[in-house]
Amino acid sequence: MNGKYRPIWITKKGFLKVIDQTKLPHKQETVTLKTAEDTVIAIKDMIIRGAGVIGCVGAFGVYLAIRETKKINENFNSKVEAIRKSRPTAVNLMWAVDKMIETLKNNSENLVEIALAEAINITDEEARKSKIIAKYGADIIEDILKDKEEKSINILTHCNAGWLAVLDMGTALAPIYEAKNRGIDVHVWVDETRPRNQGANLTAWELKKEGIKHTIIADNTGGHLMQHDLVDMVITGADRVSRQGDVANKIGTYLKALSAKDNKIPFYVALPSSTFDFNIIDGINEIPIETRSEDEVKYMRGINSNGELEEILITPKNSPALNYGFDVTPRRLITGLITERGVIRPIQRLIESKFRDLLPV
Amino acid sequence: MNGKYRPIWITKKGFLKVIDQTKLPHKQETVTLKTAEDTVIAIKDMIIRGAGVIGCVGAFGVYLAIRETKKINENFNSKVEAIRKSRPTAVNLMWAVDKMIETLKNNSENLVEIALAEAINITDEEARKSKIIAKYGADIIEDILKDKEEKSINILTHCNAGWLAVLDMGTALAPIYEAKNRGIDVHVWVDETRPRNQGANLTAWELKKEGIKHTIIADNTGGHLMQHDLVDMVITGADRVSRQGDVANKIGTYLKALSAKDNKIPFYVALPSSTFDFNIIDGINEIPIETRSEDEVKYMRGINSNGELEEILITPKNSPALNYGFDVTPRRLITGLITERGVIRPIQRLIESKFRDLLPV
Repeated sequence: MNGKYRPIWITKKGFLKVIDQTKLPHKQETVTLKTAEDTVIAIKDMIIRGAGVIGCVGAFGVYLAIRETKKINENFNSKVEAIRKSRPTAVNLMWAVDKMIETLKNNSENLVEIALAEAINITDEEARKSKIIAKYGADIIEDILKDKEEKSINILTHCNAGWLAVLDMGTALAPIYEAKNRGIDVHVWVDETRPRNQGANLTAWELKKEGIKHTIIADNTGGHLMQHDLVDMVITGADRVSRQGDVANKIGTYLKALSAKDNKIPFYVALPSSTFDFNIIDGINEIPIETRSEDEVKYMRGINSNGELEEILITPKNSPALNYGFDVTPRRLITGLITERGVIRPIQRLIESKFRDLLPV
Repeated sequence: MNGKYRPIWITKKGFLKVIDQTKLPHKQETVTLKTAEDTVIAIKDMIIRGAGVIGCVGAFGVYLAIRETKKINENFNSKVEAIRKSRPTAVNLMWAVDKMIETLKNNSENLVEIALAEAINITDEEARKSKIIAKYGADIIEDILKDKEEKSINILTHCNAGWLAVLDMGTALAPIYEAKNRGIDVHVWVDETRPRNQGANLTAWELKKEGIKHTIIADNTGGHLMQHDLVDMVITGADRVSRQGDVANKIGTYLKALSAKDNKIPFYVALPSSTFDFNIIDGINEIPIETRSEDEVKYMRGINSNGELEEILITPKNSPALNYGFDVTPRRLITGLITERGVIRPIQRLIESKFRDLLPV
């Protein structure tokens, strides 16, 4: 499963090596996750992040857990529970852990090897879906271009849903990479994505690496750009999508969707089927929204004048801050969901009929 | 004109002393503006900022200009032109400079003394309006409270429109200060306001100083809070308001207005009459929007672990950024304009009838 564009890979000793995404774009460092607990810390501290990659690392966490306990016992279960709880909103994590447990329960011996094989399988399967999403999404880009006089397209994205977030090409960025492969002239407006700046740090870094034109903007800027016809389409990823098509994604996505609607700009969400939570209908009221440390709002990390990575306080020391990780965009604001089974309008009946085999019994 | 809550005051030598707002909340330092050019630099570099204070400093800039040239000549005119051009969106600046020039042109001697008196007059007049805005705004807060079960109110504001921005109580914050004076239990959601963080830096600092409950949030967060009934009203300031009631304000205001509308939350804009531009009808297409240096997006200032003020790079070094200072919120999203002449719905006919004496001939 080791690929050129993967932020995680297996070492010869069977550990998981990951790019430390908290250091990007300033430093390219890796961390080796040797235990189930290491994977929990990596997910919690966002050394790795992104819906898809969280799921894959969760799967490898289960493999590392069984490698430690050798069998399914209380100790194993408590390790798995810790993995499940490491990020509450991203549903791919629950999906991947469930899939791992099911496979293990269907077997009685060679559990470690079977777990490793299943984690690799999950990872490869997610990568395969990403490549299909790329194609469906690029088809939409081509359609939008047909109606434009200029032969270039401006796409706005929020947060990072590239190959750092979802193997192998990402979700939101996959259609953009594919459009570039097809020779389309793409420019990307990169929302900074406060408070952790995954847009400015990770999306800009990915696009720069691929030679794709892009401009970083404050999260406040998208509305003005849309009012002035400087955005042709919005594509974001997702952390959990309800059965009727409401989308939990990085905090701030909802504001961009409102603005897209107000300016009649198509708003697409790209996701593999593992991001659906078919147990939930009303996303706004049912999807749990993670709150994270206020320090992510109050402190900022970057490179100082000596070229060193440094953290600075950017608010009054004693003012409190509140840090929701995600918000939910209601389905009425979404033009379409780009999945590995095609592009679907966010309507419960359509989603159910497309994913009938995946619905809970 | 020297008051407890003023960010600018006159020295004994007739210079203008100002609080350096680029250092807040970390350091409280002042800068003395001795020449017209000093005022241009202070406005451009945002040592002082905020619609009202920009106008007042512009007025003192004209006074310093005439103090240097003694009479209205080419040199004087070019100094005044530089003041006018120091910030293109804030219309209070043009208004204050026009008022100064008109007064000077109506006189032939004692120009320096007359200019100083007029600059003080403009400043005191703006401060008086702020106190009236406070009262009208607090009345609205009381009305909203009447309909609530809990006896506390959550107000969201964007950027800083407190006494650092508009003498003496601000515009958006004036009703909040007045509500506190009336014994109302107020809590303020403070939008960080990237890229220059006037919310996290200045609004939080002002509210902390006054002992008003507040919480700093990333600009991305307001939509989620509004969806979950955690915001009772939004109040912002304005940099320029068109004749039909479209509001140019800090970039990102439009996104909050969309979200307030979507969640049926009242959205108010507080402004003195000097913020109207009666020559402009359609704000979105006619108000010039300032673009500022990309470095404001790419670099961040704060306190490092040694307690020193430091600037760090927070994006990939070579990725470009774009930095619009303002956006325009269309009048259809605004509940009311809180002015020193009362609260007006943003309808051209109503605005014209309320400010008939100020309309251009």
